[in-house]
This record gives sequence, C-alpha cells and structure tokens, in this order.
Amino acid sequence: MSGDVVTELVGELGEGAVVTSRAAMESYRRDATTSTQPGAPLAVVRPRTTGEVQATMRWASRHGIAVVPRGAGTGLSGGSLAVDGAVTLSLDRMTAIVVDPDTRTAVVEPGALNADVKKAAAEHGLWYPPDPASFDLCSIGGNLATNAGGLCCVKYGVTADYVLGLDVVLADGALVALGGKRVKDVAGLPLLRLFVGSEGTLGIITGATLRLVPAPAPASTLVATFPDPVAAARTVVAVGRRLRPSMLELMDGSAINAVEDLRSFGLDRDAGALLLIRSDAPGTARTAEVAEVARICDEHGALTVFHTDDADEGELFAAARRAFAGAVDRRGTVLHEDVGVPVPRLPEVLAGIRDIAARHGLDIPVVAHAGDGNCHPLVVYDASDPDSVARAQAAFQAIMRLAISLGGTITGEHGVGRIKAQALPEQLGPDIMALTRRVKDALDPQGILNPGAVL
Amino acid sequence: MSGDVVTELVGELGEGAVVTSRAAMESYRRDATTSTQPGAPLAVVRPRTTGEVQATMRWASRHGIAVVPRGAGTGLSGGSLAVDGAVTLSLDRMTAIVVDPDTRTAVVEPGALNADVKKAAAEHGLWYPPDPASFDLCSIGGNLATNAGGLCCVKYGVTADYVLGLDVVLADGALVALGGKRVKDVAGLPLLRLFVGSEGTLGIITGATLRLVPAPAPASTLVATFPDPVAAARTVVAVGRRLRPSMLELMDGSAINAVEDLRSFGLDRDAGALLLIRSDAPGTARTAEVAEVARICDEHGALTVFHTDDADEGELFAAARRAFAGAVDRRGTVLHEDVGVPVPRLPEVLAGIRDIAARHGLDIPVVAHAGDGNCHPLVVYDASDPDSVARAQAAFQAIMRLAISLGGTITGEHGVGRIKAQALPEQLGPDIMALTRRVKDALDPQGILNPGAVL
Repeated sequence: MSGDVVTELVGELGEGAVVTSRAAMESYRRDATTSTQPGAPLAVVRPRTTGEVQATMRWASRHGIAVVPRGAGTGLSGGSLAVDGAVTLSLDRMTAIVVDPDTRTAVVEPGALNADVKKAAAEHGLWYPPDPASFDLCSIGGNLATNAGGLCCVKYGVTADYVLGLDVVLADGALVALGGKRVKDVAGLPLLRLFVGSEGTLGIITGATLRLVPAPAPASTLVATFPDPVAAARTVVAVGRRLRPSMLELMDGSAINAVEDLRSFGLDRDAGALLLIRSDAPGTARTAEVAEVARICDEHGALTVFHTDDADEGELFAAARRAFAGAVDRRGTVLHEDVGVPVPRLPEVLAGIRDIAARHGLDIPVVAHAGDGNCHPLVVYDASDPDSVARAQAAFQAIMRLAISLGGTITGEHGVGRIKAQALPEQLGPDIMALTRRVKDALDPQGILNPGAVL
Repeated sequence: MSGDVVTELVGELGEGAVVTSRAAMESYRRDATTSTQPGAPLAVVRPRTTGEVQATMRWASRHGIAVVPRGAGTGLSGGSLAVDGAVTLSLDRMTAIVVDPDTRTAVVEPGALNADVKKAAAEHGLWYPPDPASFDLCSIGGNLATNAGGLCCVKYGVTADYVLGLDVVLADGALVALGGKRVKDVAGLPLLRLFVGSEGTLGIITGATLRLVPAPAPASTLVATFPDPVAAARTVVAVGRRLRPSMLELMDGSAINAVEDLRSFGLDRDAGALLLIRSDAPGTARTAEVAEVARICDEHGALTVFHTDDADEGELFAAARRAFAGAVDRRGTVLHEDVGVPVPRLPEVLAGIRDIAARHGLDIPVVAHAGDGNCHPLVVYDASDPDSVARAQAAFQAIMRLAISLGGTITGEHGVGRIKAQALPEQLGPDIMALTRRVKDALDPQGILNPGAVL
C-alpha cells in the first residue's frame, strides 16, 4: 500500500525528486540534536520548484501522509527530525537568491544558505543581519521557520524583522503569496507574521522577500573578563539601560575552556566569565560608546578590559563565541537549551543554572546573547549511562522551569521543535494552548504538517 | 428584547460602564472619516478593567451581539464606526502607563494616548518611536489594531516592531496573555503577531508591553523644494538606495497650499513639491548624512535646499507636515487614501495620482511617507453633489487599483477598516482571502468582532 502511494508521487514528480532507498535517505533523518532518535521516513522528497512542493502537499493531503519540512538540518530542537512513515520534504535544491538594490530586498528560495544571502547582499554594498551561530551552514527556510536570532539581535532584531513577503504552500497544496517588496502593508490580517516562527506546522515556505539594510559601519570589539558569570550579567543589565551595542555576548568559564580545548583562540581560561561587546556606531560615536561600555565593565568588577578597532581581530573573538556548540559536542551528548529571560533577570537565571548543574552533578557550560536575555546552557551527559541520562533530562526540565519562573521563555530563537514540546503548555497555559490548537486546526485540519513539533 | 439584553449587561457591569441614552452615545459613533455614515449602536460600553471587557464579550457571545472596539476614534478607515444594533466597546477609560526602565518597556492599557506613552518614556530618557500624524490624539489600542505607522517608520519601523506582549480578550471572553517583557521569544506559534494589525476582528486588546529605545540623538532637518512631485520622488529613490534618514516625507504643491491656508508655516507656496528629511545619526555622521542628502537633492533638480540643526525650527516643519489632514478637511469631504508601493515605483504612483485627479476633475493633494513608499492622497469632494460623490468614489477606487498594479498595497498603515474592505480581495486574491476567512472563523466563529471591517 505505502509502496503504491510513493509510486504515485514518483509518477508526478519524477524519480529525480523522490529518494526512497534507505541508504540515500539516511542523511535526511536527523538535525543537529544528538539527544533524540529520528524516525524512519517513508520517502524524502527534494522539490526543485514551488509547483513540486504544491504537488507533494496535494498528494500528502489526498493520502493523509504527514510531511516534515527540512532546510539544512542544522536545527537544535528536533524540528526536522524524520517521523516514522512520514515524508521528509527537503528544500535543499531550491537555492535561488536575487538581490534588488533599488528596493533593498533579496528574493530567496528556502534552501539558500544564510551565508550565501549575506554574500549576495554584500556584492551590492548591502547587509542581511540575522546571524545564527550556524549561519555558514543553515538555510533561510530554517531561519524563517524558527524565527532565528543570532549575535546581531540586540541591535538588529530577529529574522521576522526582515521578512517583507512569503510564498507559502498550505497543507492542501494551495499557494499563498503574502506581502511583497513594499515596506509597509497592513492590507488584511497579518498572516505574513503568522508563518515566521511557525516551525513548519502551518505551511511550507517556498519563497521569501527579505529586507536588506546598508552595510554596517566598521565595528570596534571589546572583551572584558569577570570573576564570575553573575558579575558579567550585572554589567549587561547596566549596559542595557542606556546603550544599544551591536553585539553583547557572554561566555562562562566552562564555555571558554570548551572553546579553547577545540582551538586556541586566546581566551583567558581562568576567567569566571567574559563579555564580548561590539559597537558599530558611526565615527566618533563609536569611540564614545566603547569608552562608556568599558567604564561600565570596570564599575562592575571586570578583571580585564580590552578592545580592538581591527576588524579581523574582532572577528576572531566572534568566531570563538560561534565555535561554542561544536566545541561542547566533543564532550558528550548534548541537550541544547535556549531559555530567555527579561534582561534584568539575567544574573538570577545564570546563578540558577549553576545551582541546577551542581544539584544534578552535571557539566552545563553557558553562553548567552546577553543583550537580549537569551541563554544557551548546554547540558552535557553520557547517553550510554541511564543515570546520566535521567539527571540530564531532569536538569533540562529544571532549567526551562527556572526561566518560566523568572518571567521568561523556554525558547528564545531555536524553536520548540520536538524536544521542548512537552514543556510548552507550562509556559503558555491552557488558554493560549487552546487558541494555538484552533489556529493549527484551521490551517492544517488533517494534522499532516510536521506532527509532533510545537504541539 | 434588546432592552432586556442591555439590562442584563448593566446588571453585570454597573450603570457607570454602560451608556444607553442616544445623546450620550452620539460622540462614540464616528471615527475621523467623513465619507461614511455610522450606524446606531445598541449601547456603548466603557470598561475600566480587563475583567469588564471579558464580561462584555461573554455577554455578547451569549446573545450573538456584535462588538465594535474603539480607541480614541481617530481612525481613517471606518474601523470603529458604530454598527446598527452592535455594541461599541470604548477602551477610553483604560489609560494606565507604567514604564520599566530596567527592561526598557512600557506596560500600557489600550486607551492610553500615544503622546502620553511618549511623555512617560521621556521622563526616563527613553523613547517610543511610532508617530502617526495624530499621535497627540490617538490611542495605543487603535495603533495596535491598525499597526499604525507615522513619520518615523523609514528608520524606526512600525508599531508591530515595538510589541513584546499583548493581553487579548477573545470573542468568547477568554483572556490570553501573549509574550511579556522578554525581548526574544519563539515559544509556540507567533500569535502575538497575529493580533497587531487585525483591526479588532480577532480579539480585543486590553493590555500591551511595548519596547522602548534610548532617546534619539538631536536631529538636523532638511527641506528641499522641487519643480514637481516626480522629481522629488526620484530624489527619494536615490536617497533610499544608500541612506536611512530618520524621516523622509514628501508634500506636493496642493498639500503645501492647503497647509499654508490653515496657518503660515513658511512653506513655499509655489513649489511643485517639497521633501522634509531628517537625520539623527550621532555626531559627525549626522553632518555627513545631511551633506549627502543635500547633494542628492541638488543632483535631482532641487530648486532650494535648506537645513537646520535647531530642534524647534525642525519641529515646525514636521508640524506643517502633520497639519495636512486637518488642513484638507476644511476644503470639503475627504476620502483618505493610504496606498503603498515599493519605493522605486513612487514616481509612477505620484504621476498616476495626478492623472486620476485630472481625469476625474478633482483636487487630490498628496503627502507621503516617501521613504517607505506610503502615500496619502486625499480625495476632496462635495458630499451634497451626487456627481462629485460619484467622481470621488471612482477616483478612490482608481488610486487603489493603480497601487496594486505597481506591486503595492491599498493600505500601508491606516488599515482596511470599512472603507477599503471591498477592494481587499482585488489585492489579496482568492487564496489569501480563503485563508483569512479560515483564521477569522477559527477565532470568531459567530462573527461578532467588528463585523464589516476588513472582511
């Protein structure tokens, strides 16, 4: 039966678009989470056009077959893990990018990599700011599905702030072209906004019009070390009251050492924590902003404060920060947290995470997009040891509960995916969950779009 | 029967919250449109708390009575016009504003005026940027319902960009508390974004957490005159390719004269058009930006270019721009357009509006938030002359059709309301209209929330 069903799809799209051998499907089963086992997909569909995506959804609706959309598989919440008997719809072949300098926009396909969009924009003296740490590897489609953030957000916002238009294929195969190249548009309900961050549960994004901005001014990069993460966090709170640096990142001592174990970046292994701060204010304002930031660091107990106006040197520090997740991966199996809190609660959440780590006997290195209160504690454990697994799961839940208790969120930018779906009702409560279910049912009555993700 | 129904509500909320005399209800029937006659409301409800809003919606659901939400009644698209037999729910008594400088947020009630939020923020050295021309008079609730824009948008974005949290009462009276003081949050579907700009058709906003930013740097204001609007528009396109001024407004000759007829602002009555441009870049960057803008104006045929670093002098020019709608109101009855086009199409849409005015023998003065392609042609006519009315209606439709043909929108910031609802399907097409209907039905199955607006 299932064989006939797949044959029908191959008949529509051609053999080149449908992968059915177990060996060939293997590389489409996982995302970047290591803690959850993926299912066995029925087939992997690799469309080349929006029309092929529509045909796939019409076929899926007809037969009630679930569809898991997939970008580059770099997700950190299990959002594109293969599901038993479902089809994984990989957008990796749809990679077109067209920059329009007159409207300062880029029209892109979902499989285009974030880094490639940045390169194309730069060729015209323009910039696409959203920069998840994985920007070299991740797809725009994945960024849109999760409303990805990055290191730039404290000043430049998140992916959703850059979306002017979306082409979305709905569960039944209908195509809606939302928005366009116009900057302001309130015609009708804000449906465009409903899809960015909907993690593939409401529709499949097959095209996007992204807003670009002029290339930023050259930046100065400041690195300050602290005796402990809480002192660094208090500094962040003070900076946030008055300034808007273009980057404001935190790394704790464990994170610093994980990264230095990977490669020598020149970070201080003995520091309890460091802050990585950037200013791209134009001209003399940049010097003034760096001086103000340095002063605030000193006031809050910084051990050392260093800054550079050299772009390459500044990039090395950013690279060290971006190397974090990969560096920690070498230590064991990892559960990725993505909790967010209002910025003034940052000291409390960091102290709380440290307590949870101690209570559960675990190594939980932490980095944070501190300027927007978004932390990435990584719970490291031994997947072959049931006791370690149990302690890690308990710590994972405890950290999310801590964030909620501080008026925060269980996920600031990675998405709920599958690994946090159970914790979502605790944060949102029954009324929002009921509303969510109503919206989901309205757009996907059969429940075939990414089942198990979010809800 | 209806008397009993209202008595029931008075019993629940008390007489102070429910207005039933025709005389007292009169001032709640209209908004700022003069072209459409409002209906006769069953009652006007003026809640003091979220609980009273919930009680009202439970009562309305129980009896199938429609509810028209209302802020300050300054809307320009008929969105809060009273509907026969419906209840107008005025949020004007819910005006609380609490600024939290540590999180750089303001928690506000929907009846709070935009100007009062700005004042409260300023007391803490902070700023709430969205500035519709009516900001002295309009409510935050109305701003949220329409995703209001203003003169600041070219650099500072729209209302939706400043919403971190919303309390929304749904059609059945349930309360959902979406978002909060955290800056980044992707937990669950982006429902927060669904309500901003939904024009009271999906729920009643009873509270909002707004993002504030540090007060802007002092600004320089530049005014350039041109022989005609198309030359000014070409200048805007050139500026937009590389710069992001903090304001970029256009006024055509007819608009200039309408404003000067109201009061002497010192604008050049003989100019075919003028551009009002501001830069709040910090320090020396501002001087450079002003010089660059002046150069571009000269290159594109500016007759005069003048700039001032004096804040009060600069504000006078902005005040002249903001006086436009009130000034045109003196000329006759007005149909307010709010079309938006991609910025490179600005010259074409202005030329097209001029042609439409000529073809229909009408006076259609134009201003524009030119930096984001959003124009406000005001169609002036004599409501007592059926021929004038017919020509005005035809011109109104023609302008919207022109915008759509240029890849634009029928409404950039005012909302669809009631006066543009008929044109919406032409812009969105049947697939988006079907999707819109599905979302609307999921949230408001009885269709009691602002019937006739948007859909």
